This record gives sequence, structure tokens and C-alpha cells, in this order.
Amino acid sequence: MSAYDDARRAYDAKTKPRGSLGRLEDLGCRLAEIRGFVPEQLDAAIVVAAGDHGVAAEGVSAYPQEVTAQMVANFAAGGAAINVLARRAGARLLIEDRGVGVGTRNMAEGAAMTADEVERELAAGGALVDELDLDVIGLGEMGIANTTSASALTAALLDVDPALVCGPGTGITDVSHKVAVVRRALEVNADADPLAALGGFEIAFLAGVVLACERRRIAVLLDGFITGAAALAAARISPGAVDVMIAAHRSPEPGHTLLLDALGLDPLLDLGLRLGEGSGAALALPLLHASVAILAEMATFGDAGVTDAGH
Amino acid sequence: MSAYDDARRAYDAKTKPRGSLGRLEDLGCRLAEIRGFVPEQLDAAIVVAAGDHGVAAEGVSAYPQEVTAQMVANFAAGGAAINVLARRAGARLLIEDRGVGVGTRNMAEGAAMTADEVERELAAGGALVDELDLDVIGLGEMGIANTTSASALTAALLDVDPALVCGPGTGITDVSHKVAVVRRALEVNADADPLAALGGFEIAFLAGVVLACERRRIAVLLDGFITGAAALAAARISPGAVDVMIAAHRSPEPGHTLLLDALGLDPLLDLGLRLGEGSGAALALPLLHASVAILAEMATFGDAGVTDAGH
Repeated sequence: MSAYDDARRAYDAKTKPRGSLGRLEDLGCRLAEIRGFVPEQLDAAIVVAAGDHGVAAEGVSAYPQEVTAQMVANFAAGGAAINVLARRAGARLLIEDRGVGVGTRNMAEGAAMTADEVERELAAGGALVDELDLDVIGLGEMGIANTTSASALTAALLDVDPALVCGPGTGITDVSHKVAVVRRALEVNADADPLAALGGFEIAFLAGVVLACERRRIAVLLDGFITGAAALAAARISPGAVDVMIAAHRSPEPGHTLLLDALGLDPLLDLGLRLGEGSGAALALPLLHASVAILAEMATFGDAGVTDAGH
Repeated sequence: MSAYDDARRAYDAKTKPRGSLGRLEDLGCRLAEIRGFVPEQLDAAIVVAAGDHGVAAEGVSAYPQEVTAQMVANFAAGGAAINVLARRAGARLLIEDRGVGVGTRNMAEGAAMTADEVERELAAGGALVDELDLDVIGLGEMGIANTTSASALTAALLDVDPALVCGPGTGITDVSHKVAVVRRALEVNADADPLAALGGFEIAFLAGVVLACERRRIAVLLDGFITGAAALAAARISPGAVDVMIAAHRSPEPGHTLLLDALGLDPLLDLGLRLGEGSGAALALPLLHASVAILAEMATFGDAGVTDAGH
């Protein structure tokens, strides 16, 4: 019998009507399936990868590029949203500088990264996972202009029009300019590998984290649009990676729903979050912990002397 | 300036784009509005009221009536879902026996409660709130056949057909029988006060909790369909009670969406929960804590030296 079935049977023995905790039970079954056993507790971390993007030069963000470095300093000082939310969720927080300040090349003029750079980032993401002993890794990111990169990557990988993918990101008002930049990036890089040409250091790094989580059977808790684009890129490298993914929340960015549908994922939360940093992953993490706590701590009908209706 | 505006201004000063935490920010603003000040932390409890229902004699539940008492014993022993979920959410758990074993009269044959019994329960709910010093009270309930009571109460208060309100509850397959019983209860009690005639001890008690929370400006975190019916009954007694209500989750029971719409509430979670006990309230509570932690703990643009785009 599979670990998924073990978990389902364990839920069914608990003092509650069968299936009455809905998606919480499905979540616990999936966590068991991913780990290969029914977990008693979850050791979790949020990995926030930060990187700069050459395409920021096109004026696609409401914020200047130096905000990436300022926010990494803010993460280090403990003052950002993800510091607060990871702490509340009881998760370790790991900040990974993947080319802050250095940045990728401007994808509107050519490939953002070389193939070697992509390999380096994929390997670095994998190496981080290999160092950690975890049940769940939540993904987060920071990088001025990285919704533009994620939009281009999503449009290329799903073969959809940029106008259907691009949204306001963290607050731009002129989405049509972003669409035009993405269109140009797609044209200039028409024959290139999408991840190298349109991605970013932090996106490739996160794709490497996902691929290593697939190998090590660790659950990957996706955050919003940018981590979703990294996950989609990982799934194009290894389709089985989808099996370890859990979607935390649905971003208002139009491209996010497109890629969630392509990955076959239905997010746990829908709260209109558009911050990134792993904030949605941290907010969803208590649901994962709760699903496992029910399995580990609740009484069975037999334990408690409660009459079971049997369904 | 109102506490709501104070909270909004505090969110806007934090190192993130304006409004980028979406409904989490709206939640924190509402909590400030309810409390009358911007809270630094939330002291929370889940109040689970349990009671038996005479209408159980009509065979409207998959479980025999003695399960109410068995589950109350399970709550006391710490083995039920709400014990696990309240503990994970850091909430006190209060179990209130409101006529377990005794039960109301069968509403299909006449009024379930007298006016005096309703007054007693409303007062007892209010007295409990007066004893506690809390920021948030999550509502929970246990009572075999109480989805039938909540369905009748909802149909009467909203003047909708029982067939549009009734669902499978915790697992019955013959919803048409439940509809017929509710129809009979509505006919028999056509001229009576709906709360007395169709409610239950635990439902009236929870309505009393809601009314006291309105008086004391304490946030009420509703659970599913039955606590929603109690809240609707409270809102008919005092329309301003809606101002302190926050909906935790959307139950699959069809009546729940009808009453949430009537109350103008949009739940935080939609996870297919149909257990009751306050399980949805406990699962949503971390979102309330997170909304307040952001206000209390995050750095401002000024603190962190991060460039603000100003929108």
C-alpha cells in the first residue's frame, strides 16, 4: 500500500466524518506521497533567491534596480514581510544572493543568461537542497523586474500571447509597455532556450531547488507568479517534478493562473497577494503543519469510544 | 482618524508595495476597526458550544444522538480535530455544554425552545464573553442534527426554499428527507420566533457570544454553516453585529453561501471543510495573527533605507 493510502486510512480512523476536513486531508495525503511515508511533523524552510535583471533598464518596474539590494539588506536585518511571516510559520529562512547588483543581461536585446550560467544556477539550487534535511521547502524570490522575466518565460513555455500573461506586477500602471518589452524579448530570443534567454539567476536557481526536491522527495511549496515560472521551467526539464509541488496561493498576475493550470495545481489560498518573497508560501505553511498534526495527534474512533457511522 | 485608517497608513509605510499583501492587509485594517486601535498581538480563543437536538429523532443525521456526548468527552480528552487545530493556532479552547443529552424539543413537531430558554442561552453566551479578555473569539459547535436546525433557521430568516439550503451535512446521503423535515418544521412553526422555534441551545448561546462581542468590540471569527446561522440570528437581533464578524471559511453546505452573502462576508479559506467544531476558524486564525504581526514587526521604508515608489 502506498504512503498516500496509508495517510488516507489514518484520516479515516480519526474521530470525524470521513473526508470532512476536505482539502486539508488531501494535502496530508499528498505530503505522505511526496515523502514516501506518513510524516509526524514537518521541518520546513523558505528559500528566498534574489537576483537582478538587465531588463530593468527598460523601465518595466515601478522601483529602481537598487531596491533589490536594499531589500536583501532588509531581509538580513529581519525587517521584511517574509522575515515576519516565516517566523510566525515556524520556518527557517534562507536568503540566497544570486547576482544582486551584477544582474543578467537585458533580455530585450539578447539572451539574459548563457547556458553555463543556467547550469551554474541549477547546480547551486540543487546543492542547497542537498545540504538541508527538510520535509518542505517554500520558494521565494526578490528581483526588480522579475515579473517581466517570469512573464516572458511563461509566454514562451506555454506559447501564449504576452498580453494574456503580463499584469501590473508590484505596481506599474503601464502594462502595455511591459507587454511590448516581453514581445521584443521573445522575438530577439526566438530560437534560444527559454530559461537561459528569458529567465534570471534567481529563477534558474529556484528551478534547481525544485529539481533537487524531486530527486530527494521533498515537498516544494510554490509562492506566486515568479516561483511558478521557475517551477514550470523545472517541469520542462523533468516532468515528474510536478509530483512534489504544492501551490500556496493564486496571484492576481494573469500569467499565474495560466501556469498553475498548465502544472495542474490548485492553490490553497486566494488572498490577492502580489508581494513575492515567499510571503504566500509562508502563509500557507500552517495548513501543511495542520494537515500533519491531525494525523499525528488526533484520536481514532477506537481510542475515543466514539461511534463511527462508517462513512 | 479611525483605527482602520491608522492600520492602513501603517501598512503603507512598510517595506513592500502598497496593498501588496492584499486581503491580509484588509484583515488587519478590519481587526483595528473592530478593536478600536491597531493591535500589536491577538489573544484568541475558540468557543465550542455543544447541544443536542430533538429533531435528531427524525433520522436526519448519519450519526446517533449519543455521538454529541461522546464528542464532548473527546474534546475534554484532547483527541478531537479542534483540540489539535486550536493548539497549532495558539488559541485557548473552551468547550461549553449547552444541553448535551437533554436536547431541545423536536422542531418538526413544535418549537425547539421556549422564549425563556433562548434568553437563558443568549445571556450565558454573553456572560462567557464578559469573563474573558480577548481580541478574537472563534466560534465552534457540536450537535448531532444541528445542520438540520441551521438549515431551518437559515431558510426561515432568509425566506428561501429549504431545498436550496439543505446539503449532506456531515455525511447523510438522503438530503430529500432532511428537506422534508425542514419543510415540516417551517410549517409547524410558521408564526413563531425562528431562533426559538428552529434553533438549538448551542446556536442561541453562540448568538449570545456574537452580541456580546459586538458590545465589547471583539472580533468574531465564524466557522462554517452552523456558526453562520447563529451569527445571522444575532444580526437579526442587532444588525451592527455584522461589523465584528470575520468569515473563516466557506462550507460546501449550500445554505452557507446564502447566509454569507446575506451577511456580506467573504471567507478567508475555501478548503471543502464540513466538520464544524470551529475547525475552519482555527485554520484561519494564523492569517489573523500574520496580519497583525506584519503591523507590529515589519520595518518601514524609513527604518530600512529602502526606496519607496510611493504607491
